[in-house]
Amino acid sequence: MVNSDDKPTVVPTRWIGPIRISGNVLNDEVEVPLATYESPLWPSVGRGAKISRLCENGISATLLDERMTRSILLEADDAAAALAAVRLLQTGFDELNEIVTAQSRFARLIDIHHQIAGNLLFVRFEFTSGDASGHNMTTLAADALTAHITSTVPGVRYGSISGNYCTDKKATAVNGILGRGKNVVAELLIPREVVEQRLHTTAQKMVDLNVRKNLIGTLLAGGIRSANAHYANMLLALYLATGQDAANIVEGSQGITHVENRDGDLYFSATLPNLIVGTVGNGKGLDFVEENLTRLGCREEREPGANSRRLAAIIAATVLCGELSLLAAQTNPGELMAAHLRFERTTEQQGAQP
Amino acid sequence: MVNSDDKPTVVPTRWIGPIRISGNVLNDEVEVPLATYESPLWPSVGRGAKISRLCENGISATLLDERMTRSILLEADDAAAALAAVRLLQTGFDELNEIVTAQSRFARLIDIHHQIAGNLLFVRFEFTSGDASGHNMTTLAADALTAHITSTVPGVRYGSISGNYCTDKKATAVNGILGRGKNVVAELLIPREVVEQRLHTTAQKMVDLNVRKNLIGTLLAGGIRSANAHYANMLLALYLATGQDAANIVEGSQGITHVENRDGDLYFSATLPNLIVGTVGNGKGLDFVEENLTRLGCREEREPGANSRRLAAIIAATVLCGELSLLAAQTNPGELMAAHLRFERTTEQQGAQP
Amino acid sequence: MVNSDDKPTVVPTRWIGPIRISGNVLNDEVEVPLATYESPLWPSVGRGAKISRLCENGISATLLDERMTRSILLEADDAAAALAAVRLLQTGFDELNEIVTAQSRFARLIDIHHQIAGNLLFVRFEFTSGDASGHNMTTLAADALTAHITSTVPGVRYGSISGNYCTDKKATAVNGILGRGKNVVAELLIPREVVEQRLHTTAQKMVDLNVRKNLIGTLLAGGIRSANAHYANMLLALYLATGQDAANIVEGSQGITHVENRDGDLYFSATLPNLIVGTVGNGKGLDFVEENLTRLGCREEREPGANSRRLAAIIAATVLCGELSLLAAQTNPGELMAAHLRFERTTEQQGAQP
Amino acid sequence: MVNSDDKPTVVPTRWIGPIRISGNVLNDEVEVPLATYESPLWPSVGRGAKISRLCENGISATLLDERMTRSILLEADDAAAALAAVRLLQTGFDELNEIVTAQSRFARLIDIHHQIAGNLLFVRFEFTSGDASGHNMTTLAADALTAHITSTVPGVRYGSISGNYCTDKKATAVNGILGRGKNVVAELLIPREVVEQRLHTTAQKMVDLNVRKNLIGTLLAGGIRSANAHYANMLLALYLATGQDAANIVEGSQGITHVENRDGDLYFSATLPNLIVGTVGNGKGLDFVEENLTRLGCREEREPGANSRRLAAIIAATVLCGELSLLAAQTNPGELMAAHLRFERTTEQQGAQP
Repeated sequence: MVNSDDKPTVVPTRWIGPIRISGNVLNDEVEVPLATYESPLWPSVGRGAKISRLCENGISATLLDERMTRSILLEADDAAAALAAVRLLQTGFDELNEIVTAQSRFARLIDIHHQIAGNLLFVRFEFTSGDASGHNMTTLAADALTAHITSTVPGVRYGSISGNYCTDKKATAVNGILGRGKNVVAELLIPREVVEQRLHTTAQKMVDLNVRKNLIGTLLAGGIRSANAHYANMLLALYLATGQDAANIVEGSQGITHVENRDGDLYFSATLPNLIVGTVGNGKGLDFVEENLTRLGCREEREPGANSRRLAAIIAATVLCGELSLLAAQTNPGELMAAHLRFERTTEQQGAQP
Repeated sequence: MVNSDDKPTVVPTRWIGPIRISGNVLNDEVEVPLATYESPLWPSVGRGAKISRLCENGISATLLDERMTRSILLEADDAAAALAAVRLLQTGFDELNEIVTAQSRFARLIDIHHQIAGNLLFVRFEFTSGDASGHNMTTLAADALTAHITSTVPGVRYGSISGNYCTDKKATAVNGILGRGKNVVAELLIPREVVEQRLHTTAQKMVDLNVRKNLIGTLLAGGIRSANAHYANMLLALYLATGQDAANIVEGSQGITHVENRDGDLYFSATLPNLIVGTVGNGKGLDFVEENLTRLGCREEREPGANSRRLAAIIAATVLCGELSLLAAQTNPGELMAAHLRFERTTEQQGAQP
Repeated sequence: MVNSDDKPTVVPTRWIGPIRISGNVLNDEVEVPLATYESPLWPSVGRGAKISRLCENGISATLLDERMTRSILLEADDAAAALAAVRLLQTGFDELNEIVTAQSRFARLIDIHHQIAGNLLFVRFEFTSGDASGHNMTTLAADALTAHITSTVPGVRYGSISGNYCTDKKATAVNGILGRGKNVVAELLIPREVVEQRLHTTAQKMVDLNVRKNLIGTLLAGGIRSANAHYANMLLALYLATGQDAANIVEGSQGITHVENRDGDLYFSATLPNLIVGTVGNGKGLDFVEENLTRLGCREEREPGANSRRLAAIIAATVLCGELSLLAAQTNPGELMAAHLRFERTTEQQGAQP
Repeated sequence: MVNSDDKPTVVPTRWIGPIRISGNVLNDEVEVPLATYESPLWPSVGRGAKISRLCENGISATLLDERMTRSILLEADDAAAALAAVRLLQTGFDELNEIVTAQSRFARLIDIHHQIAGNLLFVRFEFTSGDASGHNMTTLAADALTAHITSTVPGVRYGSISGNYCTDKKATAVNGILGRGKNVVAELLIPREVVEQRLHTTAQKMVDLNVRKNLIGTLLAGGIRSANAHYANMLLALYLATGQDAANIVEGSQGITHVENRDGDLYFSATLPNLIVGTVGNGKGLDFVEENLTRLGCREEREPGANSRRLAAIIAATVLCGELSLLAAQTNPGELMAAHLRFERTTEQQGAQP
């Protein structure tokens, strides 16, 4: 299957910023690399970054939680057997954690949730995973846990190593409710004059647009646990440039933009409850990824997890920049398209997008 | 903002296959390029491709529908004014289409849907867009339509050029119900002996796993219009290698795996109702993308839309290959992890993933 | 199974109002009967009704659409056969409608939608049903259509008379997007002084509460196409008192409260896209139901459908009254519980709730 | 507002059964009262009840969990303040429980969950509530908790006594994932000959129908955490007859039917994760309700909660009976409509439905 002629996929990438970020994870000004075929994304995020530097303390990024999950599926004799198995798992938590610890230097079991439907039992194991996003680490742990459970707990049999209650790369409600990946809130308080002069809009216009488009529009479309304009764009660009498994933008983009008019100043926030990121693991060993992570300050000697938390906070701040910029543009008729056309023409002339 | 030092993002890519595909779009054997940091994806899809060649006619890919959408948001005086505006738009369909046609050689208005919530009016314009995915084409058209409507229809004002009822890059129900992008079904009937010898499983095991994991597991997780194991992985890999806007995997991955046990033979299908793809437009002018599209047979002289329909059918078939392979692995305890570890070790030794 | 000793279920009922209602269906002041075990509902709706009479034109109720649906499930040989069947149904629309007309004086086929997943075909027939809610009428029609289709369309077989894509008595997105039952918007513009003096709140407080609780809170909970506080309560009470199939509150309660601060005046709206109601059919022949419908003005000699449209508009206005009252109470800490306790004590003393 | 002329709503009611029930709550044969305007429900549930008596041990009803919830909404200065408040609540759990205990003899705080979106904090308090469904008990407790929190926790202010993250009478994902009300699984293993002779179908037909209609059909419709045909019908009928707040059928009907073909025998299960029921409180003091609860064996001297658990198990078993009967009918073309028509005619002749 290996074919030396296979050419790699080369995604145009630019460093944008810096973005000013504060909060419980970092306090810094950071440039970010965005890999995309959609070049208008660069000036759009760039405008948001500029705004962040015009605001005291910049964007505040607050990390609320972190965990990685894998749900196994067990077939029980009946619901009573499934319930009995759950009781055993709950009382045997420490023993389960020992099995996890024996598999991995970094994985630690921190919680267990379950669902029973008829005779089916879904067990959602929740782990910390150090600086890794943790896909493989948790699958390995779940494998060992499954072998242990099916050989020691009566009345339950192997169903699947993943029961889709994890949930990986699918848009669901469970990740937001129980947690998966980093849960980060990015917030920015923008003075009225910056709103008017740089974003060409007002706080009230932004509030109205957010309510009508992101909240009501998404609701009418039958959206699930999501209210934003285009988180997926920024996530994809940063995920690619930092060696992440970018298919995780599916659930990562389920975030909430909440906006308030504070006496003419604009409170703008982006909440990302399911941000799967890591600074070690698959994809992170590629030269350009190493370089990018280093330039982002995410390859320092720190306690386990600190580098990936820094990356998560940076990503959330970047998402805020892009979301802010697009929503501001959409408050004015015609502005979005004009900006797109203008920039695409420019980059073409410069040969920036080869 | 332009910085000549910015290094591109280089995603390891391999051609996998060929996949045997028949149906109402193409009848061919096609190799596909997969760009990914997750190297185990290659042998996984490869196994599915192999299976396709062992089955008569291979994978049948049926294109059901195609359209691209943009929903605008209008603020009306009240619900009565919104309703009156809808009536005007419906009777003025031809006039609206003329405005669209004047903007674009390829865009044609084919349908209009709407939602009214209180005094808010969301109008979802649906277009054909030739071989382009149509993001920009439809935004341009929607811009012109909005200008026309807000200047001619009484009682309605500009709200937003996009009201999230489109829906672009968000997981919702509307795209599956009303259509957005290509709607494609890929199906494969696999003889019992191939199921047993190549997939090391049985049709009944596959049926049970699909029901329990993809249908019930996703349901319990609070999923929306989706039942599959990992469509997002294959979509991302093919989208990147063919210059697509890969953020569209968010809705693209909302597909349904349906499996049947037909007297021991395995009927396996992947339905992808929201596949946003194009063979011209942003990202398609990059040299390696041109090459990849050409090798896929998607740069031929054909009627408008035919190349992108071919690409959509190929993508759906590829998704089936990866889904089939992973589900088969998950029917057996321990197999998934073993395969992952084996392959990652192999590619490391070969330096295949630089 | 008949047992003469079986005692009926007797639900305490009061007439509340009148509510002032205008719009494209009726222009009247109407009292409404509310059957409930939760007596605080009466004064709560009563307060809203009072507000409606203090506002010019009262509550504007706009009927947007009406239809009743039944989706059948067909098993096809494969997706190509399913697609071919869809094409036949579309071209044979008139013939299908003749089959419907032969079954029923009132049912008329007005649209067909479908879904294909693998080899499965779901066909959603949409009918008008006169003054009946239409459950039985459409099932009867669907039965005849199914017999016709399975005997004339090659490659498809009977799957189920209902494929859950209708959708009846389940909370889904399809009814809001494609329509089922009456789609009604109720709106009220309340002057600032009424807001302050009667509701003890402000327009801005109401806007903030609605956004945070109904929109964001429901979103975080993983809600689907719904943003309201308690539509289900008013729907249940009116459905029971007017002989409706009250299990339809499941989808009927999927509505959207949208609120605006208009220079201190309060724009308050309730949109109910899936209101299943009828004034003839099961349950409507009971004496007290006849009386109630008569007093509501829904038993007049009118064109078919006019009585049930009137009932739908009245229900939507009632829902608005209850929603307005509860939300206003929740803007103030402690008020809700105090009102509950006060009223429950009162009704107990009066023996109103025996 | 009190009007002595107001006539009560009288819903026709029949006792059906008995149903044979075993499991971790009761082991008994129980008749159940069904209040409905839809008379075909009676023979439908009756058929299921008959089947239960033909199976060894009858229906096994397993209670998995019970809790009642109320989520309050707090406005924080920012996400950091919200996070700090959460930490305080978690460490002060015992103190919070004392506040709850002081309010109520029966309410006990058993868990707290939360959500942060921007500067908004939703706290979901979870209680046991004895034999009451607990709506008022938990609102009262939440009121006291809110007063305590807003006066002692810095940086947070009152938002709403209910933030819709509870979630009451709305269809969402949170109740199934975190629990609300009783979580009950009802299961029945039906021998092949009973399936064939009494249900006129086969286990495999039932499996196929359930997968296609309840799982895939609901999924295509954009359903949320639900896969069944008509749980709402049985819930409504039993809720009305036992004095429940029947608006809770909205979330109560979000349940899952899971069916297996076990060598020709039929495993049939109904999982109801959000069953809100009580045997004391509003509506339970009405004479006929007292009588009905007594006849159901739900007014015995037992430990607190035991009567309402019994009622929950009976309701789940009843839901299974009705679901089983309808699905069996739908496996055969024409059977559903014929049964409807036959029974409606019969009851009319008998004057059973006055």
